[in-house]
Amino acid sequence: EIVAAIGTALGDGPLKGRHVLVTSGPTHEPIDPVRYIANRSSGAQGAAIAAALRDLGARVTFVTGPASVPAPAGVEVVAVETARQMLEAVEAADPADAAIFAAAVADWHVTEARDQKIKKDARGLPTLGFAENPDILATVSQRETGRPGLVVGFAAETENVIEHATAKRERKGCDWILANDVSPETGIMGGTENKVHLVTAEGVEDWPRMDKHAVAARLAEKIAEALG
Amino acid sequence: EIVAAIGTALGDGPLKGRHVLVTSGPTHEPIDPVRYIANRSSGAQGAAIAAALRDLGARVTFVTGPASVPAPAGVEVVAVETARQMLEAVEAADPADAAIFAAAVADWHVTEARDQKIKKDARGLPTLGFAENPDILATVSQRETGRPGLVVGFAAETENVIEHATAKRERKGCDWILANDVSPETGIMGGTENKVHLVTAEGVEDWPRMDKHAVAARLAEKIAEALG
Repeated sequence: EIVAAIGTALGDGPLKGRHVLVTSGPTHEPIDPVRYIANRSSGAQGAAIAAALRDLGARVTFVTGPASVPAPAGVEVVAVETARQMLEAVEAADPADAAIFAAAVADWHVTEARDQKIKKDARGLPTLGFAENPDILATVSQRETGRPGLVVGFAAETENVIEHATAKRERKGCDWILANDVSPETGIMGGTENKVHLVTAEGVEDWPRMDKHAVAARLAEKIAEALG
Repeated sequence: EIVAAIGTALGDGPLKGRHVLVTSGPTHEPIDPVRYIANRSSGAQGAAIAAALRDLGARVTFVTGPASVPAPAGVEVVAVETARQMLEAVEAADPADAAIFAAAVADWHVTEARDQKIKKDARGLPTLGFAENPDILATVSQRETGRPGLVVGFAAETENVIEHATAKRERKGCDWILANDVSPETGIMGGTENKVHLVTAEGVEDWPRMDKHAVAARLAEKIAEALG
């Protein structure tokens, strides 16, 4: 452990020479110049994962939506707002050995977002039309060339967590899904802990409820093992 | 000025014995357990106003949505999320000598917000229905009993700023409107400065573009004068 700590301090470690892409945070989808649709992601889990990968020696590209926690030091930060911008940033990043899609990307954006603030007036209630956002996880997982050797997605579920996550892994074509129970009664969304299940081709690992930094450290170790 | 500073330090000042209600921040209107509609208010202007009123000796009740800047020290903080909760908190507050409605309250909330996360599935795109939120400014301005002696509203406008603000003052029944140009090209929304116009029954004062703390100090002085 002392040797590992010294290795880390020297920018060494099992992921030395590896490039890992991490997405994090929510996306914001504009309605008009002052309103947007958001989600409750703080970006804390993604930031912790980026820091843990950095600590194992990886070069980390950190593509982040408007998170409420700061990006970690020592990673290359690319700040975006919408899902479409996040896909662009992911596509523009250098080829990666692994890609960890921890961002809580909005599924939809508002079509015909307004240039001017929508007024509350006699025209009555607004109607919002939606279009699907690009599916960043599926797009990268299903690349014919340049696919990272390991692609990890996340699933934030409020019911049937493992069932949904297992189906999602197959549907998206990624290698692992880290599935997180965010039903309101757990109090997890926005909190400091996560209760996750790692879903792989081999099966499901149930991890104990733990601090997001501990989840990140364990995931980073698993990634280092997988990249061997 | 030295006397004023000493007075302030002693909890004295021209607003000593006065109770002022300040609302601040955005509101969040839930769509489902993980998604919500937000707006770009940071809560910085409202927090600065509450602090400036406190500095003039007022007792301040600070009703705040989920702002990105902290509430000032020395005020009574009531934290809310939605517009409906904000109205409840305003109605529950002690009678006030003045009420300053600086919050960027959502005009609408989502009807039938879901208990479970909306899934992206074969059922296609979601449709969101909206209903009007309570109009907190108009409700308090038009009270038959218990109306604060001075009611101040805000208007964040992207076009025809003074015209819209003047019409808003009459429509709501408040005494003053502090109108703010938030068109994207000003870069003001989310920034540290404001360019405001104070619209009263007597006319319009154009204030120079300045730091939000300077806007707050000037407004607090005007309020102290008005309450005499």
